[in-house]
Amino acid sequence: MTPTEESPTGAASPAPLTLSQLAEMAGVSMATVSKVVNGQTDVGPKTRAMVEGLIHEHGFRRQRRRIKPAGLIELVFHELAGDYPIEVIRGVQQVTREARQGLVISELGGRHVPGQGWLESVLSRRSAGVITVFSGPTEEQRARLAAREIPLVVLDPAGDPGRAVPSVGATNWSGGLEATRHLLELGHRRIAMITGPDWALAGRARLDGYRAALDAAGVPVDPDLICPGDFQIEDGLTHTHRLMDLPEPPTAIFASNDGQAVGVYHAAYARGLRIPDDLSVIGFDDMPAWRWATPPLTTVRQPLTEMGVMAATMLISMAEGETLPQRRVELGTELMIRSSTAAPARRRTPPISA
Amino acid sequence: MTPTEESPTGAASPAPLTLSQLAEMAGVSMATVSKVVNGQTDVGPKTRAMVEGLIHEHGFRRQRRRIKPAGLIELVFHELAGDYPIEVIRGVQQVTREARQGLVISELGGRHVPGQGWLESVLSRRSAGVITVFSGPTEEQRARLAAREIPLVVLDPAGDPGRAVPSVGATNWSGGLEATRHLLELGHRRIAMITGPDWALAGRARLDGYRAALDAAGVPVDPDLICPGDFQIEDGLTHTHRLMDLPEPPTAIFASNDGQAVGVYHAAYARGLRIPDDLSVIGFDDMPAWRWATPPLTTVRQPLTEMGVMAATMLISMAEGETLPQRRVELGTELMIRSSTAAPARRRTPPISA
Repeated sequence: MTPTEESPTGAASPAPLTLSQLAEMAGVSMATVSKVVNGQTDVGPKTRAMVEGLIHEHGFRRQRRRIKPAGLIELVFHELAGDYPIEVIRGVQQVTREARQGLVISELGGRHVPGQGWLESVLSRRSAGVITVFSGPTEEQRARLAAREIPLVVLDPAGDPGRAVPSVGATNWSGGLEATRHLLELGHRRIAMITGPDWALAGRARLDGYRAALDAAGVPVDPDLICPGDFQIEDGLTHTHRLMDLPEPPTAIFASNDGQAVGVYHAAYARGLRIPDDLSVIGFDDMPAWRWATPPLTTVRQPLTEMGVMAATMLISMAEGETLPQRRVELGTELMIRSSTAAPARRRTPPISA
Repeated sequence: MTPTEESPTGAASPAPLTLSQLAEMAGVSMATVSKVVNGQTDVGPKTRAMVEGLIHEHGFRRQRRRIKPAGLIELVFHELAGDYPIEVIRGVQQVTREARQGLVISELGGRHVPGQGWLESVLSRRSAGVITVFSGPTEEQRARLAAREIPLVVLDPAGDPGRAVPSVGATNWSGGLEATRHLLELGHRRIAMITGPDWALAGRARLDGYRAALDAAGVPVDPDLICPGDFQIEDGLTHTHRLMDLPEPPTAIFASNDGQAVGVYHAAYARGLRIPDDLSVIGFDDMPAWRWATPPLTTVRQPLTEMGVMAATMLISMAEGETLPQRRVELGTELMIRSSTAAPARRRTPPISA
């Protein structure tokens, strides 16, 4: 029940205070100090201010401890489908194996918030830490994890995880910018975008990157060319048919993930359009499967395996009582130019009217 | 340490014997009886014969017990790559979630036999059971699992798992037969096959199904058209180039998995061959990603998710002390006809010389 905490190694002079020293000095429980330190909200404003004042004055030093050798790390997906989860699992597994932790996988049946049963299981397993992917616990669930000193890292946060929760994402905005700039540089001006769902931060950032690249190039954003999607293959399929039926169809489509891009391929094939001759397509993610699409898909690589490594490394640091140097990390995306993008065919580039 | 066993519910007359009754009657330890019952090999032939005689005479009834509610089930992959693992995980997860078991995933870094460290972790976690996928523990590791009453199920056995180990596979031979028969019925006579590695049972069964279909149709097997592969995309790529350079190239290629089929697509695209007009392609597995290939891949569906459900269900039955009605289960494959197969083009069908 009690966490194994080593006694602080004898440090001289004005060393930062430990949790127990802070609690004693503030005249509150260690649990209360822990809540303040971990950014939980269920602490009165006066108490919070006092503890924060002491930390500001004296500094705070977490108790170092070793993670239990045969412990468990929880990895939670909203959905187990496609290549995405396996890329993340592979990265997390590299770290958990090294740290001699078992890796427990759960799926939330498509929901982005775990149910109560899940939390009870995690608590009864006494897991050493939790990584949620494209999903996250409720405020109450987070508080219960924190009360047991079970750290949490959110990987690829779906919504805003809040400042208190450490998270690992990709540079989605830059990725969107780079993808669109690549198409602009090839000479495209009619560039459509298939978006992610509104509530998905990653998708919104990609869309904003697209807008920013068009703005910078002085190409007006045509609302007709922005198609609301849900990261599904079907998005690419339906929107491509609609887009290519426009009086002025696009010469290039930027899909918010590789799945959507594959839907575009499918619709193009059905319409007898050749990629990239008649239509350029760019995706996002760089899923291994689609490197072998015909033609191989130009896409923005999201380093999912590295994101898994990073999230697990942060989690284990936290489980060992270390303070993270950085609570919000974005790993770099990279444009992977393959064969699905090319200069637009002459006849398909309408003159831009000012 | 001691397994929680409920006392047998009062049964009348000539009820089959329990493990402890058998041990007492035979004058050996319960561990020894357990080994005989579980098909382990490290029991002397005389002792085995005696115990088996008693079981034959009186019958044997496993002690029913409930699986510990917050226990762990281990799922072990030789490699976490591609769609295959996620399909299996999804199936296993359905059952473990229902049974309130945590699902621990391990990867063996490409090896088909777990290392010693893995076994120690499983034992220290006191897991309720183990499923190995396309891999399996050594005889010694199996004995150690059995000694702790940790049941084992092998999913898609790579080699022969032995009679004693419960396993779940697919009807690979029938699948190979059906794929080849489909191509024959379309009128193909020059049908190439890219195989799996020699040591992989599933791949050998698919090859034998191919041969059987050709034999039944009176089409001689041409050794030039049988290409040794390793279930890799690259197999499809390299062999297709070689095959299409033959004086009499095939009009159809049967790939032993969808990955290889994608390699064939790639090579065909590079050579300017249209699928299925110039070359028919059929795969094996039915990975979700390739349903969206252009053209959509005709393939033999291997029910990986259902295999995961079956393996986990068998495992939990064993963990609860039930005797499996069937230790070796093969779930049916299904031919999924999409758009990558068609009748051979006239000019490409050479006359068969007797």
